[in-house]
Amino acid sequence: MKLENDLLLRALTKQKTERTPVWVMRQAGRYLPEYREVRKKAGDFMTMAKNPEMVCEVTLQPLRRFPLDAVIIFSDILTIPDAMGMGLYFVTGEGPKFKKPISTAEDVDNLPEIDVNHDLKYVMDGISLTSQTLNRKVPLLGFCGSPWTLMTYMVEGGSSKNFSKAKSFLLNQPQASHKLLQKITDASINYLNAQIASGANAVQVFDSWGGALSPEMYRVFSMDYMQKIVQGVKKENPETPVILFSKGVQYNLKNLANTGADCLGVDWTTDLSLARELTQDKVALQGNMDPCVLYAKDSVIEEEVKKVIDSFGEGNGHVFNLGHGMQPDMQPEKLEVLVNAVRKFSEK
Amino acid sequence: MKLENDLLLRALTKQKTERTPVWVMRQAGRYLPEYREVRKKAGDFMTMAKNPEMVCEVTLQPLRRFPLDAVIIFSDILTIPDAMGMGLYFVTGEGPKFKKPISTAEDVDNLPEIDVNHDLKYVMDGISLTSQTLNRKVPLLGFCGSPWTLMTYMVEGGSSKNFSKAKSFLLNQPQASHKLLQKITDASINYLNAQIASGANAVQVFDSWGGALSPEMYRVFSMDYMQKIVQGVKKENPETPVILFSKGVQYNLKNLANTGADCLGVDWTTDLSLARELTQDKVALQGNMDPCVLYAKDSVIEEEVKKVIDSFGEGNGHVFNLGHGMQPDMQPEKLEVLVNAVRKFSEK
Repeated sequence: MKLENDLLLRALTKQKTERTPVWVMRQAGRYLPEYREVRKKAGDFMTMAKNPEMVCEVTLQPLRRFPLDAVIIFSDILTIPDAMGMGLYFVTGEGPKFKKPISTAEDVDNLPEIDVNHDLKYVMDGISLTSQTLNRKVPLLGFCGSPWTLMTYMVEGGSSKNFSKAKSFLLNQPQASHKLLQKITDASINYLNAQIASGANAVQVFDSWGGALSPEMYRVFSMDYMQKIVQGVKKENPETPVILFSKGVQYNLKNLANTGADCLGVDWTTDLSLARELTQDKVALQGNMDPCVLYAKDSVIEEEVKKVIDSFGEGNGHVFNLGHGMQPDMQPEKLEVLVNAVRKFSEK
Repeated sequence: MKLENDLLLRALTKQKTERTPVWVMRQAGRYLPEYREVRKKAGDFMTMAKNPEMVCEVTLQPLRRFPLDAVIIFSDILTIPDAMGMGLYFVTGEGPKFKKPISTAEDVDNLPEIDVNHDLKYVMDGISLTSQTLNRKVPLLGFCGSPWTLMTYMVEGGSSKNFSKAKSFLLNQPQASHKLLQKITDASINYLNAQIASGANAVQVFDSWGGALSPEMYRVFSMDYMQKIVQGVKKENPETPVILFSKGVQYNLKNLANTGADCLGVDWTTDLSLARELTQDKVALQGNMDPCVLYAKDSVIEEEVKKVIDSFGEGNGHVFNLGHGMQPDMQPEKLEVLVNAVRKFSEK
């Protein structure tokens, strides 16, 4: 059965579209009062993330307000290490934490293999329910974190400013690091394939901290593992579009275009015209407005949306998005201005 | 009178050197126990920064331990807004704060012009005393923050994660923003010229947050004002080398090379070979090892130092530095390994 609105899937595969599809990262989030209601009812973040009804509800909330071209399943990139028994919890204002961080090669060896359909059943249930409820109105996106990004949290024990522990681990214990990254990669491939089997129409890999590495370390410790994920997904689901989003890795866009991914996410520090040049138009591009523009006046938001659309220029393969997620203190009305502006300026 | 060791000044102006000169950002800092002693005696950060004897002492401390090719005056980039009456103070673990942040165009109009020789006399006294004590052993660097970087602290009222207030100010009040940036620029030009008159042999402009802006906004709101600073310094001190260091602005290196600066700081996310290509060898380059390498084993530090030196390749105009400052939890012995490795691998 065909999707009612398949603009996103066509753009991701560089087919012609009547206008530029738009969704934004963290569109299901704290900036929406109706999200905060559910969050309050759940008590804590993981209780909400593990409840399929709540997941379905918050995933669909932004679509009720704005004419978006996709929804992304509400979840967290740290579900995999949590399923590996690391004890994920959230401290308000401090972000995610792990009870048992990785600090030795032995810790890596002791990490269990996970069965995604069992250990992460709640994610698949959330996707199935959302997919049914959505009833093929727009595509549903699944996602996971990149192996390197997950590794930073797993080794640091939570968020970090300069990733000193995770980088020391890479530098001092490269073998154990590769073992850890491979374990995460194997789990991620199964995880994304299970998400697709449950109803996800496309998937995105979030590499939030790739840009903290030098170009060489990025290729060895982050990009290569994302490429393995792309291959593992494509092997089982050749038709499902895969998006890779690494923040701040401008010069590796050229290499990322050869990973087999259909689309690359681009942040606002790289012009889309330059990104097209670097990727030689081999892939679709997603992005790239600075989310801070949503703090501006409506007229400024419209101008900035137009600039992004113009910077991509003629041709197929652009998905409008922010270069980073929505912030909790943003006004929902501003996102409406953005979505309408994308429609207005990209209509052909 | 000639400097005993003028390697840095020669490298900054792309003259031949027997080996690559090395200094590192925040080399006078909390990772040194003797620095923590002085800091403890002072009580708080600004008391130390305003005491010329203490400034001289901590500036010279790293030179007693390591054979460095330069020292940088101990101070803070926020001395200018402090002198403008914004009320700078430091909260342990939270960084700098301002009692009276800028939030309106009127606040900008009300910012007073400063007389750097009077209002920032303590900086000049610190430089004079350090210069005398140093007795021309190695060059003494002066510095200031970039106008955009100072603006972020002045508008946010302190550190920030995503600069939402400062960016909103740029987007919603571009005229007031330009007025503010020009006021900071005027003060910075006088400030650097006064530092040179007091004994600084070269100066660096720190643009810590340029990389948070889109390429276009970077050029309009950050780079153009740094260029004015370069021009203002060169007008009065044509022989004094000027270094610009913007973090994470790879694609603007090409434009930065045309600002008139002698040298550009490069962080570890850009290979030096690429930086040379982008800047067409018009300027010297300073950098660019990831400071996190200093958490690694000695042998890894040596390998990484060699990689940086090799990535610059043949030719003149390289100053070895880290891509960011020393961290408080680093071991002083590791910096010694780095400095010795630079000497060993770059000796011609």
